[in-house]
Amino acid sequence: MIDIGIVGGTGYTGAELLRILSGHPQARIRTVTSRSQAGVALDSIFPHLRGSVQLVYATPENSPLEECDLVFFAAPNGTAMEMAPGLLSSGVKIIDLAADFRLKSTLDWEKWYGCPHACPQILDEAVYGLPELNRERIAAARVVGNPGCYPTAIILGLLPLLEAGAVSSTNIIADAKSGVSGAGRSPSERNLYCENSENFHAYAVSGHRHTPEIEQALSTIAGTPTEVVFVPHLVPMIRGIHASLYASLIESSTDVLGVFRRRYENEAFVDVMSTPSHPDTRSVRGSNMCRISVHRSRSEQQIIVLSVIDNLVKGAAGQAVQNMNLMFGLPETCGLEGLPVAP
Amino acid sequence: MIDIGIVGGTGYTGAELLRILSGHPQARIRTVTSRSQAGVALDSIFPHLRGSVQLVYATPENSPLEECDLVFFAAPNGTAMEMAPGLLSSGVKIIDLAADFRLKSTLDWEKWYGCPHACPQILDEAVYGLPELNRERIAAARVVGNPGCYPTAIILGLLPLLEAGAVSSTNIIADAKSGVSGAGRSPSERNLYCENSENFHAYAVSGHRHTPEIEQALSTIAGTPTEVVFVPHLVPMIRGIHASLYASLIESSTDVLGVFRRRYENEAFVDVMSTPSHPDTRSVRGSNMCRISVHRSRSEQQIIVLSVIDNLVKGAAGQAVQNMNLMFGLPETCGLEGLPVAP
Amino acid sequence: MIDIGIVGGTGYTGAELLRILSGHPQARIRTVTSRSQAGVALDSIFPHLRGSVQLVYATPENSPLEECDLVFFAAPNGTAMEMAPGLLSSGVKIIDLAADFRLKSTLDWEKWYGCPHACPQILDEAVYGLPELNRERIAAARVVGNPGCYPTAIILGLLPLLEAGAVSSTNIIADAKSGVSGAGRSPSERNLYCENSENFHAYAVSGHRHTPEIEQALSTIAGTPTEVVFVPHLVPMIRGIHASLYASLIESSTDVLGVFRRRYENEAFVDVMSTPSHPDTRSVRGSNMCRISVHRSRSEQQIIVLSVIDNLVKGAAGQAVQNMNLMFGLPETCGLEGLPVAP
Amino acid sequence: MIDIGIVGGTGYTGAELLRILSGHPQARIRTVTSRSQAGVALDSIFPHLRGSVQLVYATPENSPLEECDLVFFAAPNGTAMEMAPGLLSSGVKIIDLAADFRLKSTLDWEKWYGCPHACPQILDEAVYGLPELNRERIAAARVVGNPGCYPTAIILGLLPLLEAGAVSSTNIIADAKSGVSGAGRSPSERNLYCENSENFHAYAVSGHRHTPEIEQALSTIAGTPTEVVFVPHLVPMIRGIHASLYASLIESSTDVLGVFRRRYENEAFVDVMSTPSHPDTRSVRGSNMCRISVHRSRSEQQIIVLSVIDNLVKGAAGQAVQNMNLMFGLPETCGLEGLPVAP
Repeated sequence: MIDIGIVGGTGYTGAELLRILSGHPQARIRTVTSRSQAGVALDSIFPHLRGSVQLVYATPENSPLEECDLVFFAAPNGTAMEMAPGLLSSGVKIIDLAADFRLKSTLDWEKWYGCPHACPQILDEAVYGLPELNRERIAAARVVGNPGCYPTAIILGLLPLLEAGAVSSTNIIADAKSGVSGAGRSPSERNLYCENSENFHAYAVSGHRHTPEIEQALSTIAGTPTEVVFVPHLVPMIRGIHASLYASLIESSTDVLGVFRRRYENEAFVDVMSTPSHPDTRSVRGSNMCRISVHRSRSEQQIIVLSVIDNLVKGAAGQAVQNMNLMFGLPETCGLEGLPVAP
Repeated sequence: MIDIGIVGGTGYTGAELLRILSGHPQARIRTVTSRSQAGVALDSIFPHLRGSVQLVYATPENSPLEECDLVFFAAPNGTAMEMAPGLLSSGVKIIDLAADFRLKSTLDWEKWYGCPHACPQILDEAVYGLPELNRERIAAARVVGNPGCYPTAIILGLLPLLEAGAVSSTNIIADAKSGVSGAGRSPSERNLYCENSENFHAYAVSGHRHTPEIEQALSTIAGTPTEVVFVPHLVPMIRGIHASLYASLIESSTDVLGVFRRRYENEAFVDVMSTPSHPDTRSVRGSNMCRISVHRSRSEQQIIVLSVIDNLVKGAAGQAVQNMNLMFGLPETCGLEGLPVAP
Repeated sequence: MIDIGIVGGTGYTGAELLRILSGHPQARIRTVTSRSQAGVALDSIFPHLRGSVQLVYATPENSPLEECDLVFFAAPNGTAMEMAPGLLSSGVKIIDLAADFRLKSTLDWEKWYGCPHACPQILDEAVYGLPELNRERIAAARVVGNPGCYPTAIILGLLPLLEAGAVSSTNIIADAKSGVSGAGRSPSERNLYCENSENFHAYAVSGHRHTPEIEQALSTIAGTPTEVVFVPHLVPMIRGIHASLYASLIESSTDVLGVFRRRYENEAFVDVMSTPSHPDTRSVRGSNMCRISVHRSRSEQQIIVLSVIDNLVKGAAGQAVQNMNLMFGLPETCGLEGLPVAP
Repeated sequence: MIDIGIVGGTGYTGAELLRILSGHPQARIRTVTSRSQAGVALDSIFPHLRGSVQLVYATPENSPLEECDLVFFAAPNGTAMEMAPGLLSSGVKIIDLAADFRLKSTLDWEKWYGCPHACPQILDEAVYGLPELNRERIAAARVVGNPGCYPTAIILGLLPLLEAGAVSSTNIIADAKSGVSGAGRSPSERNLYCENSENFHAYAVSGHRHTPEIEQALSTIAGTPTEVVFVPHLVPMIRGIHASLYASLIESSTDVLGVFRRRYENEAFVDVMSTPSHPDTRSVRGSNMCRISVHRSRSEQQIIVLSVIDNLVKGAAGQAVQNMNLMFGLPETCGLEGLPVAP
């Protein structure tokens, strides 16, 4: 059994971690921290966990985090980088679901997150936790930066094309749409029911924090600096990300579907659909699956990739458990076999 | 392994059966029938099952239903009663998720469903498949009539009170609210997105087919004819039933919460919450759980019971699998351990 | 032209007042106050008003409220009672959309709102602003307490029955359902999109502040103390209230539909539908209409009334403008002719 | 007064025409046809029109269409082209809200709509009813082809750029998102509530009927053949279209916002917002407004235009009434002054 601590268990990502880990045969949740809810039973905040999770929130100080084998951070940006050095020195492995260990450049970190990075030396050894890209390195890592939700959907949708050199690394457009749970559970006007239901809009067109993360990964994959025009939109639904990706094909004779199929044929959590298909977000709801379909424009010059994930699972808690499985030598799908819940 | 056939696998109930049975360690789905979709792969209709269900719809005539141990009917009312005699004579057990084997009175059947019952003799041996009420009889049954969704929520909410004689059997009001999936997947104007989103209304106030089913069960429990004013409403959500139940308390000193707790203390799928709680439908979404809370009016004379289920799970496919487990001597929770998916 | 001030214009009720008054031929909005948004253009908060409302929020102190003919309070409970004496002495009329002038008993006020009432003497002259009940008194009033949203739907649904003595004043049940906008626009966890979408639940079963308001009005109408079991529920939609009302008929020969038709035949904003009808909330969305249908239980002993309004219009801003029209001698429907927007 | 007939009044577009025309001071609805609902009162299908629309559906044969000044076709594609010659010869003007008179090329018509065009001679004189593009020609027209919903949002978002030669006419991407009402009110599986709620997906990526309409208009505006990669998506909401448009800027020094402001400064129904703004679909719900904002990519090479409309109003019934106003010499905004209803 893996002894697990969760720092920050009152948000949607934390709740989803609890749901998945409760059904994981090798996971034992030792402690869940929350400063604001210390002393409160978890299942009074999340009644859907009644009968399965019988823990009480504790402050980080009163939690046996150092005794755990693994600590997940489902806390705000900037939390993990403060606590990581101490935990690592106690032999605890770390998966951060926030952004602290995603960007390799501390300059980028400072620019997009507005503060200096607290432990650049750990950043160096941290591995970007996208198993389809970094499987072996994740297995050997002490610290994993779990990818953002948008980056997961977008990178998986472009990876085969850029790796194969099939599309230009310029003029890539990522028009992405997310359910509202991506904004978290903290009260704010823009997350209210009445502000989101029966409404649709773009946001952060001038710059979103996931942009440097996407470009860092794509540039590494392509082997050349790769810029993406990334436009996020908010959809009136709880879960799901749909990325519509546009890239310029270099050789019109390329067997694009074949490129995807070969790249992902051994991946348990990437499903390349036949053409013409249109993956819908509900087809992955509650599961760790990414579904992808590939199209061409009528002029044959543009590739259109459609990529969907559940932002709380493959875009957060599920991918984190997938990383845990790799780090502890378990089958990658362990505890992640649940089928999507639809409709 | 139990060899299973499903008659009528293109609706929401059928899809949910497929989802649950795919994860059931003792179930093997042999065949799924559909006249309209014969020859079509199941996962092209239900992409969320891609990778897990690799069957193709067949007509009933071309399906090895007689070779199965158990056939689920997830088909329209009137289907099971036509096919039941033949299957039973082949030694196949039957669980009907439609209404054919719920009402004991053929007169009631004719009145509410508009046609004569095709096999009254089988009706006699059929057991009403509410495990919390009929556990032993279900275990011994060849034919189970799986309860309707509204009746499940309402009967579980009133059972302890009527069994204990704590409330009057007159003046019971069941103000119930259902998600839209209860209306099925057949195209009709009233089930359209634009007719239901951002809208709420009652329907069938003058009489709903679940009324005789509810009253039959409650009368049996109470040992006296029991009438319910049942008013169903449609909620702009996919899954979930919420029943708000009003009954007149006979002795004001009754420990009502205690009555519920004692009655359900050994039930795996009924969760009696502390007072004051307000169960929400999402706390059971995707799971076989029924959550209940109990309140009194300020005058102390009225009991208010709030009861929630997922209409597609405890109200249909999950309860059917719970019945299957009983009929085949398996642990009642087998294959039904998945936690609710919330938010 | 009526010169109008609005105190508290950043919530949904305030926005709806602005929308309705912008199209009102006799209204001129002079000033809209907000402490938190002072200096901000209204249409940057409410882009749907771009091009029609060109005001900037001001603090109450910097607003010419005393120069107005009428001030609407769309502010939290307790605001109007502090400012009312000063405004009245300047000759300004007042319509409070919060609760300050609804309850006649200062004891009830203190019990349910947790503070002493600041101006009991004004409470005495204030009129409860339900035009269908108090038309003449509203026309002569200086201070109107605009009814709550639930009370409006519930009182209009029971008024003809109690006035005619057709139902018992005991055992009345009001099972009411509201869209989320009734909870306002202040950020809080329970109002988040992800907490409400695809979810349904009751709340405040042990006691809701609208209970004394409902019972005060019904007792006056019935001429006898009248208790209501009031259970509010939250529906995953923005606008709309649906009240399902249950009462015991005294004489089974009563022509109940006739009672409603006669009572409301001259009312512009109450639509009594034929039996059997089921009014839906979208049929009044954005309009000041209340639609009602009447049913009997199979036993003929229970009357079931279904009553729907738009909580932001007939349940708040629209009814306030209807009251304004009465107070200033205008046709009652002036500025309120817009049809519901459906779907 | 303009005497008006409506052919096909049972869909959402027809209902919206009825709502808008009911409040239009110069419109008198003489007759509304429906074969399926002949003899049925309109307000029994659309209860939100109770009290305002007191007509009964009639078959086209029994309707005095020839006595009208104007007939709107809110019927399926192919209806108007059959009836147009007869009506025109009776001196009746025509606005078709379907596609019959949108495409100038009969070859395109046949290719995309699968049948020969019934009256090519009328097609020649028909005017594409986008007032911001063809105001004078609409005013003089006998037959107007009212634009599709997607084309309206997309053309208005690109018109100033192409007219000014500011962007390349190649590599234009229109990633568009629509509410479900765009699919109409005919029952079909894909329009069901449970298929659309909590779900998001693209559709028709290989080719949508609005593509030739969009390219025809943009090519005319640009003065050169213009191809658009058009990808429509379905949003779980009733009303609203959001187009995210990507085009390559030719001169990086272009004052793009200025181009939009100058082009639309006299347009009553196009609102160019300041940068950086993100128009939301609810800000135009129920109104005839189109709101637009303009952005640049970080590289400054891509222009990103966000354009929103209500698909049933500016994308259908509202624009049709705007065209009617032009054809009958009325102020263009007549009957279209209602503010958006939000939230």
